[in-house]
Amino acid sequence: MNEEAGAEPAKVGGDRPEAAIVTIGDELLSGVRADTNGPWLARRLSELGFAVGSTVAVGDDPERIGGALRRAVADADVVVATGGLGPTDDDRTRDAVARVWDLGLREDPDLMAEIRARFRSRGYHDAPRASRRMAQVPEGARILPNPAGSAPGLRLDLPADPGGPGERILILLPGIPTEVRALMDGPVEVALRDSFETRLAPASIRTIHTTGIPESALAGRIEALLDDVRGVEVAYRPSTHGVTIRLLARGPGAGERLERAAKLVEPVLAPYQYEARDGDLAAAVGRALNAAGLRIGVAESCTGGLVLKRLTDIPGSSGWVVGGVVAYADRIKEGWLDVPASVLSSRGAVSEPVARAMAEGIRRRFGVELGIGVTGIAGPGGGVEDKPVGTVWFGIAGPRGTHAEKVWFQGGRSEVRERAAQHVLHLVLRSVEAPGRADRIRTSDSRGG
Amino acid sequence: MNEEAGAEPAKVGGDRPEAAIVTIGDELLSGVRADTNGPWLARRLSELGFAVGSTVAVGDDPERIGGALRRAVADADVVVATGGLGPTDDDRTRDAVARVWDLGLREDPDLMAEIRARFRSRGYHDAPRASRRMAQVPEGARILPNPAGSAPGLRLDLPADPGGPGERILILLPGIPTEVRALMDGPVEVALRDSFETRLAPASIRTIHTTGIPESALAGRIEALLDDVRGVEVAYRPSTHGVTIRLLARGPGAGERLERAAKLVEPVLAPYQYEARDGDLAAAVGRALNAAGLRIGVAESCTGGLVLKRLTDIPGSSGWVVGGVVAYADRIKEGWLDVPASVLSSRGAVSEPVARAMAEGIRRRFGVELGIGVTGIAGPGGGVEDKPVGTVWFGIAGPRGTHAEKVWFQGGRSEVRERAAQHVLHLVLRSVEAPGRADRIRTSDSRGG
Repeated sequence: MNEEAGAEPAKVGGDRPEAAIVTIGDELLSGVRADTNGPWLARRLSELGFAVGSTVAVGDDPERIGGALRRAVADADVVVATGGLGPTDDDRTRDAVARVWDLGLREDPDLMAEIRARFRSRGYHDAPRASRRMAQVPEGARILPNPAGSAPGLRLDLPADPGGPGERILILLPGIPTEVRALMDGPVEVALRDSFETRLAPASIRTIHTTGIPESALAGRIEALLDDVRGVEVAYRPSTHGVTIRLLARGPGAGERLERAAKLVEPVLAPYQYEARDGDLAAAVGRALNAAGLRIGVAESCTGGLVLKRLTDIPGSSGWVVGGVVAYADRIKEGWLDVPASVLSSRGAVSEPVARAMAEGIRRRFGVELGIGVTGIAGPGGGVEDKPVGTVWFGIAGPRGTHAEKVWFQGGRSEVRERAAQHVLHLVLRSVEAPGRADRIRTSDSRGG
Repeated sequence: MNEEAGAEPAKVGGDRPEAAIVTIGDELLSGVRADTNGPWLARRLSELGFAVGSTVAVGDDPERIGGALRRAVADADVVVATGGLGPTDDDRTRDAVARVWDLGLREDPDLMAEIRARFRSRGYHDAPRASRRMAQVPEGARILPNPAGSAPGLRLDLPADPGGPGERILILLPGIPTEVRALMDGPVEVALRDSFETRLAPASIRTIHTTGIPESALAGRIEALLDDVRGVEVAYRPSTHGVTIRLLARGPGAGERLERAAKLVEPVLAPYQYEARDGDLAAAVGRALNAAGLRIGVAESCTGGLVLKRLTDIPGSSGWVVGGVVAYADRIKEGWLDVPASVLSSRGAVSEPVARAMAEGIRRRFGVELGIGVTGIAGPGGGVEDKPVGTVWFGIAGPRGTHAEKVWFQGGRSEVRERAAQHVLHLVLRSVEAPGRADRIRTSDSRGG
């Protein structure tokens, strides 16, 4: 929240319907696993236009679950709970709900048939006994089909206080994050919009993905610019891949205010910004390659397959990724990418000529328009004084020649690899979107991300 | 929690003192930032021997804060709260506490002197007015010096219900994670051990990682076995990569009971189990390859670099990964891995002979002992009736010949790829740990994970 910009406080309540979140599972309390569902649901519900009052995590104890759900249902119009719907004995959410609201549990025949079919299709004779728990539903519950897994979601319309009139909606979801997201983006969103449409104050949101600039530098530059736009909140979400900025406004004129704010910050963000749903830079790269009719091949050393993995994460990537070589051993760089042995021994595998030769080698050998080479020291070992851990050389070979640059990345092995992959994707995007521009990037030491 | 096994229920309380966690801050509910303090405190308190009953996240609204703290103090012996102790107007925790327990706020002179000194040492003339809020403490609060920042922690001894006798400890900490950790590891731990030493029951824990068997099948098989071991809790943590099982015991003889339980389930789990810190199967594969003196090369199609990425995630992997080819286009399979064009056209790229040829091709061409081939349909497009989305063929070529198998995986593109990579790593592990054994695995349709 950006106070200087006169941001509307994130006050709970107001006219907006209120939502509460309950996440269930001993693992959330033992600290074994961080709760990713809670924060994700909070953002999703807030974007839909709900005021999110609280999130609670409780263990698999039925009394705790029941108590948390009862309180949440008393406080909020909608309660979304995750976890405790699986097949095992520590999945106690159904029992807890049945007890608190005094509902029977019945086996849903359609659900049971579906579970059986699923197990049979995988070669089992029948569904294991334990899986039958998943077909048990509290009376009055409506089933929300799960597009991504076996345990369905459940919807119950309940009184604010047990025994009172029905006014609240309780949504029960399984605990696996991909399933929570699929259910929430599908049947749950439909149901909530249907019930609350007129009261929702959806936020107008502009999400801007950036890479290659730290959060503090970003905040310093854009907050001054937003001084004279009131009623627009700015939030920053930093990750290994970069910083995502969210501009948010609600109420009358929200769209206009947002537009003004976005225009103000645009010139500062342009060199770092990219357009991609879910913030995946690889998707933006794919769109750009597709539009330009270019195919890419990648030769990776320190990133060890991560760049190719990022590219092929994108559905339809076979249209623009031909493939690549992970040349982890030097003899593969030599024999498969034509990196001269003399250069490897005189300059070392992490060097400008090797990055160039890898990019040119894969371009020529795979017969693609764009060849990429990545060679660096991911750590934890292998660093030397003039090439510390985190040093990565990049090569990008195209029809107009080859560009190379060196970046030093901070962090451990996994951060260095993730940041290097993100950096090379950004490099490809810039060179495809503005050909020739990559060549203007300085070849000397560059900043890490 | 495993009731049939007579496990001590994960009932919060028991003999152990109970702890609850409250995290405070609008950013936790907007989903902009995940709450890292909650899970960290939960693990820390649980390891100290407390039973952690719940964690709650609330926004900066004083009523919400007060309500959450009042409930937590009513429920638990110790409440640790983070956030809302800073200098700005949206730091409302002190006010909320003062209101709920009807305490006055006074300026602590020592604290104020310290804050002044800190600002002066940084070249300021005096502490800014806003920072004086940080010297305000509720009556009766004891100050816990902050080793890592400016806002101190506070400790209050409170009645379970406002107005009742004093029995509870409320610890207020600032929200910055490094400061939470420094305070918790220092003065807070000292205070808690001092108050609860005799009642604390630290846990003995055994973690077992498995892959290739669904949670329900796992639970069905092992719960019967544990029937006669009392006082051991079983918890399952499913993910795209498999299911992690945690056995937990506390109190006298905990280590022995745990040992007995682990021995009982071992024969059932053996085919699915792997040893790896943090549950990364690739680390187990690396150790096995290293021990056997084998080097590996990977030819990937549908996984597009993910298998190589998983292997090279492991520090030191250059000792056993030579590299690989991502043969996304068929012409790369043909030209670089010697997959016959006639087989590609007659049987299709997703077929047994292609998986075999890929594995054998990379083994021969890269000169490694173990060659891996993965070819499948990750989706969302490309499925046909006899090869639906999720169909993946695996080949593994070694000194004793080539094994191939087909698996059908559920889920979207990313799950199919993740599960396929996990499956082939498990295949490699089994074939290295028990050579020849992979050949006994059925080559026909197999179950997905």
